[in-house]
Amino acid sequence: METKQNGLDLKKQPGRVIDKPTNPMVTPLLNDLYQFTMAYAYWKANKQSERSVFDLYFRKNPFGGEYTIFAGLEECIKFLANFKLSNEEIDFVRDSLPNCEEAFCEYLRGLDCSDIEVYAIAEGSVVFPKVPLLRIEGPVAVVQLLETPFLNLINYASLVATNAARHRFVAGKSKLLLEFGARRAQGPDGAISASKYCYLGGFDATSNVAAGKLFGIPLRGTHSHAFVSSFMSLDEIVDKALRSSDGKSTSEDFVSLVQTCLTKIQACNSSSLCGIFSETNKSELAAFTSYALAFPSAFLALVDTYDVMKSGIPNFCAVALALNELGYKAVGIRLDSGDLAYLSTEARKFFLAVERELKVPDFGKMIITASNDLNEETVDALNKQGHEVDAFGIGTNLVTCYAQAALGCVFKLVEINNQPRIKLSEDVTKVSIPCKKRSYRLFGKEGYPLVDIMTGENEPPPKVGERLLCRHPFNESKRAYVVPQRVEELLKCYWRGNADKAREELEPLKEIRNRCIKQLENMRRDHMRRLNPTPYKVSVSAKLYDFIHFLWLNEAPVGELH
Amino acid sequence: METKQNGLDLKKQPGRVIDKPTNPMVTPLLNDLYQFTMAYAYWKANKQSERSVFDLYFRKNPFGGEYTIFAGLEECIKFLANFKLSNEEIDFVRDSLPNCEEAFCEYLRGLDCSDIEVYAIAEGSVVFPKVPLLRIEGPVAVVQLLETPFLNLINYASLVATNAARHRFVAGKSKLLLEFGARRAQGPDGAISASKYCYLGGFDATSNVAAGKLFGIPLRGTHSHAFVSSFMSLDEIVDKALRSSDGKSTSEDFVSLVQTCLTKIQACNSSSLCGIFSETNKSELAAFTSYALAFPSAFLALVDTYDVMKSGIPNFCAVALALNELGYKAVGIRLDSGDLAYLSTEARKFFLAVERELKVPDFGKMIITASNDLNEETVDALNKQGHEVDAFGIGTNLVTCYAQAALGCVFKLVEINNQPRIKLSEDVTKVSIPCKKRSYRLFGKEGYPLVDIMTGENEPPPKVGERLLCRHPFNESKRAYVVPQRVEELLKCYWRGNADKAREELEPLKEIRNRCIKQLENMRRDHMRRLNPTPYKVSVSAKLYDFIHFLWLNEAPVGELH
Repeated sequence: METKQNGLDLKKQPGRVIDKPTNPMVTPLLNDLYQFTMAYAYWKANKQSERSVFDLYFRKNPFGGEYTIFAGLEECIKFLANFKLSNEEIDFVRDSLPNCEEAFCEYLRGLDCSDIEVYAIAEGSVVFPKVPLLRIEGPVAVVQLLETPFLNLINYASLVATNAARHRFVAGKSKLLLEFGARRAQGPDGAISASKYCYLGGFDATSNVAAGKLFGIPLRGTHSHAFVSSFMSLDEIVDKALRSSDGKSTSEDFVSLVQTCLTKIQACNSSSLCGIFSETNKSELAAFTSYALAFPSAFLALVDTYDVMKSGIPNFCAVALALNELGYKAVGIRLDSGDLAYLSTEARKFFLAVERELKVPDFGKMIITASNDLNEETVDALNKQGHEVDAFGIGTNLVTCYAQAALGCVFKLVEINNQPRIKLSEDVTKVSIPCKKRSYRLFGKEGYPLVDIMTGENEPPPKVGERLLCRHPFNESKRAYVVPQRVEELLKCYWRGNADKAREELEPLKEIRNRCIKQLENMRRDHMRRLNPTPYKVSVSAKLYDFIHFLWLNEAPVGELH
Repeated sequence: METKQNGLDLKKQPGRVIDKPTNPMVTPLLNDLYQFTMAYAYWKANKQSERSVFDLYFRKNPFGGEYTIFAGLEECIKFLANFKLSNEEIDFVRDSLPNCEEAFCEYLRGLDCSDIEVYAIAEGSVVFPKVPLLRIEGPVAVVQLLETPFLNLINYASLVATNAARHRFVAGKSKLLLEFGARRAQGPDGAISASKYCYLGGFDATSNVAAGKLFGIPLRGTHSHAFVSSFMSLDEIVDKALRSSDGKSTSEDFVSLVQTCLTKIQACNSSSLCGIFSETNKSELAAFTSYALAFPSAFLALVDTYDVMKSGIPNFCAVALALNELGYKAVGIRLDSGDLAYLSTEARKFFLAVERELKVPDFGKMIITASNDLNEETVDALNKQGHEVDAFGIGTNLVTCYAQAALGCVFKLVEINNQPRIKLSEDVTKVSIPCKKRSYRLFGKEGYPLVDIMTGENEPPPKVGERLLCRHPFNESKRAYVVPQRVEELLKCYWRGNADKAREELEPLKEIRNRCIKQLENMRRDHMRRLNPTPYKVSVSAKLYDFIHFLWLNEAPVGELH
C-alpha cells in the first residue's frame, strides 16, 4: 500500500509561499457571526486552545447519483495559509459582540493557523458520503473560525464539479463540452469558480474570459444574435478584401465571392439542397460575411437568428465555401433554439450534400455546436433520438446546479482534548461518526474501488490480501468481509502549521482534472449510471463500530414512559 | 404625473466619484469571449461606434409567482463608472483572439463608458416580464461588452431578492427573518451578495459578518452544536463569578446558582414541567452556563444537541432563571431539528409554566428561533399547523434559490443607427420587443398598479384621467382600455457618459429596501398569493403594437410548401 510518509518525503518543498485565495473577498470575516461569539465564549472559559478535531463531510450524493467529485481544497489551503484578521476587521468584530473585552481583541490579533493541521482527500477525487473530505485539527476557537469559509469554498465547488462530471458522463468522451454560464451564475464568483470547477469535472473549455486568464482554461466563443441583427445589408461592408490563407493572393471582393457561392448552392440539383430555401436573410448574410472577414481562420456562425434551414445554414455554407476558395477551413455552426436533434441532423445532411455536389472535401465534417438550456436530461434525450451535435455549450443548468442547487457539507466536532465526541440526532443519517479517524479505499481484483473504510487513528491499516470486516456505521446487519488487492489511504497532510512544513503540494488545475477523469473511468459502471445507480459502500472497522455505539448509548437520554 | 426631468433636477449632484464594484473580481474580463470576438468583428467592419440600444429584461417571473424584485443596479453602475481594461487584460484578450491586429488593442485601450447612457427602473422595485429593467444606449461594441457583466450582476441579485420577498410574504410582517446561508451559498460572492439582496428583499439580519461590515446589515448568531459538545461537565468552568446587571453585586458561583435553578424547575408541580425530564445532559448545561458567562445580556441557546424537551429546554431555563436573578433577561432559544411546530409549542408552554410557577415576569415571551432547511413551503406549512416561532433562520433554500436556481434575464438589441431591430423565434415568448421605448406604470382608483405599458420613445406619455388602449404585445385579442389615476415613468437615467452628468443618485441600501417593502405592500393581493396568483398585465401602446407586427412580417422568411 502507499504510505502517507512516502508521499510526503517525495513532495517536501520547504519555503514555499502560498498565494491568497482567488477571490479577495475570502477573508476571515466571510464567516457566520456565531463563529466569533463562540470564539469569545471559548476564550472567556479559557478553552480557546483546547485541541480539537473536526471532520468536514457530506451526507448524501447530489443529483440522485451515487458519487461526488471533491473540489475546493486548494482555495481552503490558500485561505488558511493567509489567515490573519486586520485591525479594521477586529474593530468590526468588537463592535458586533455585546460587551466585548479588549483582551479578546488582542487574542484575535495574534491568531493565525500556525497550530492547525489539515488532512484531506486529494482534490478531484471521487468521494462518498460520511467519509471525511477534510480532517482539521487545532485550537478549538481557531478551527471553528475555519468552518464557514471552508464549507463555503467546498460546497459549491464540489457540487458544480460533480454536475460537470455527470454532464461529461452522459455526453460521452468524444464530445466537446463548453461551459457558457457566466451570465446566469449566482454572482461574479459563481461564474468564475463555476468555470474552474466545470473544467476540473471534465469540461473542455469556457466562455468566461476572466476564468481563462486566472486558471488557464481554454476559451471559446463566437457571436450572438445581436451581432447578426446589427447588420442590415451587404452594402454595409466597406472593406471587402480578404487575403488567401497562404498569403499568396487576395480576393478584392469577398462579398461578391460569397454571393457567387450562395448561387452555386442554390443551383445544385441534390434533393438535400434543392427547394429547402429560396431567399435567405440578407442582414444575416452580411453579418456572417463580416464575421468571416474578421476571423477567416476561425469562422463559426450562429445560424438561428431568422430560420435555421431556410436562411442560417445556406448563408453559412456560402461564406464557408467562399473561405474555402481562399484556402481557409470554416469551423462550423452553433444552434441555439428549436429541435436540436432534427436541426443538427438536417444541417449535417446539408453539409454532406455540399461536400458531394460541389466536391469540397471534409465539408461534411463541419462542427455542429448546440446550446439553449441544455442539461443532463436533454443531452441524454438527444442521444436517444440520434443527433449530429459535436459540441455542447451548457450554461444555466450547469453552473447554477439547477437540478440541485446545494450540497450539504457539514463540519462536525469528533474529538476534543483527546475525548471523542458524537452529535446525536433523531434522524440516524445525521448522527456524526466520532473520533479522530483514518480512512482507506480498498480495491478489488479487477482494479475497481470496492469500499471505503474508516478506522480509529491508532488501528493498524488494512493490509493487501488480508481479510477485513467492513461494517455499516449505523446498521448492525450490514457487514461484509473484504480481501483488498490494493489499499489507498485517503487523508493526506495538506497543512501542518505553516507553508514550510512537510506537506502535500498544491497541484496545477490540470493535474487535478486528470485525477478526476482517471478516477471516474476507474469506477464500476453501475455506480455511475443515471437510473438507479448502485450505492458505493462506506464502512467502519469493527472496533470503530463498537465504539460509536457505546458512545451513543452513553450520551443519549433515557426516555420515560408515563 | 411625475416627469423624469423633475426627478433629475432634484437629485443632480455633479462631481461625485462612484466606487468600484463590491467584488474586485468584477472587471471587464468577467465576460463571455464572444463579446470580445464581436467587438473585434465590429471594429474590423468599422461598425464599432454605431449607436445601439439594448434592453435588459426577463421573460418569466421566478418561483411560479407573478412578480419579481429588481436588484443589482448599483453594482452595474459601479462597474460602468470604473470600466477600463488594463494593459495586462488587453494582452490577454489579444492572445485569446486569432490573428488579432495591434490597432484593435489600441482601440480597447481607449475604451470607457463616456459614450454610454443607462436608463433603469429604480432598484428594489416590483417588476414584471418583458418590461425593460435597463435600457442601455451607446456604441455597439461597448454596449456588448456590458452584456455579460450586467446580466451576471442582475440575474442572481433579482432572483434572491425575490426569493427573500416571497419568504417575507409567507412569514408575515411580525416575524424576524434571519439569513443564515453563507456556508451553503454558491461561492464566496454568492454568500455576500445573498446577504445584501435578502436584506433588500425584506430580511431583518444576516449571520454573515463580511456582509454586515460591507453593507451595514444587522448581524445575528449565537453558537453551534459543536460548542455544546465541546464541553464535558460543569467542573470545566473555572471562572464562575458573574457581576449583576446593575453592577451592584456579584454571584461568586454562577454555576451553583444555575444548578439551584434547575432543581427549582424540577421541583415544580405544574403538569407542563413535571415529569417531562429527569436528568438533563451535563455537558449541555456546562456549555449553556459558559455561554451565559460570556454573554449574560444576550443569552440565546441552541437547545437540540441532545434532546429538546428532556434536556435542552430545562437546561436553558435553569441558566435563564439564574441570569434573571442577577437582573439579566435571556433572549431565547434556537431549534435546529425535529418537528418545529410541536417543539416550539411545547417550549412556549414550558416557558409560560416557568413564568407562572416561579413568578418570573415575561419569561413566557422568550424568543423562539427556528432553523433547519426552512423554505417558503415549510414556513407556510408551519403557519397552517400553528407554531410559536418568533424568528426564522433560513439558509440553503433561500440563498441558493433552491426552488429555482436561475433567473433568465436577457439583453437584446432593439435599435441600431435609429433602425428598430427585432429578434424572431418560433417560440413567441422569445420574440423581442423592438424600438427604443419608454415604459410607464398606470395606477387605478384604489392606488394599486393596474398595468405597465411600453410605448415608442416619441409617443406622448399616458395622461392621468385619459382613456388609453393597452395591448398585449403578441396576442391581438388581448387589449383593454385604462383610465389611469396616476402615471409613473419607469425608466430613469442612471448614467449619462460620466459620473458628473445629471443622473439619479445611487441610494443607500436601506432606502432601496424601503422601496421594495413599500411597493410590495401596494400590490393587489391576488398578484402576490402563492397559489394561482393573477398575472399582472404588461402591455404596449396601439402604435407600438402595429409597428412590432409590421417589422415581424418584414423579417420573417416566407415558408414554401412542397
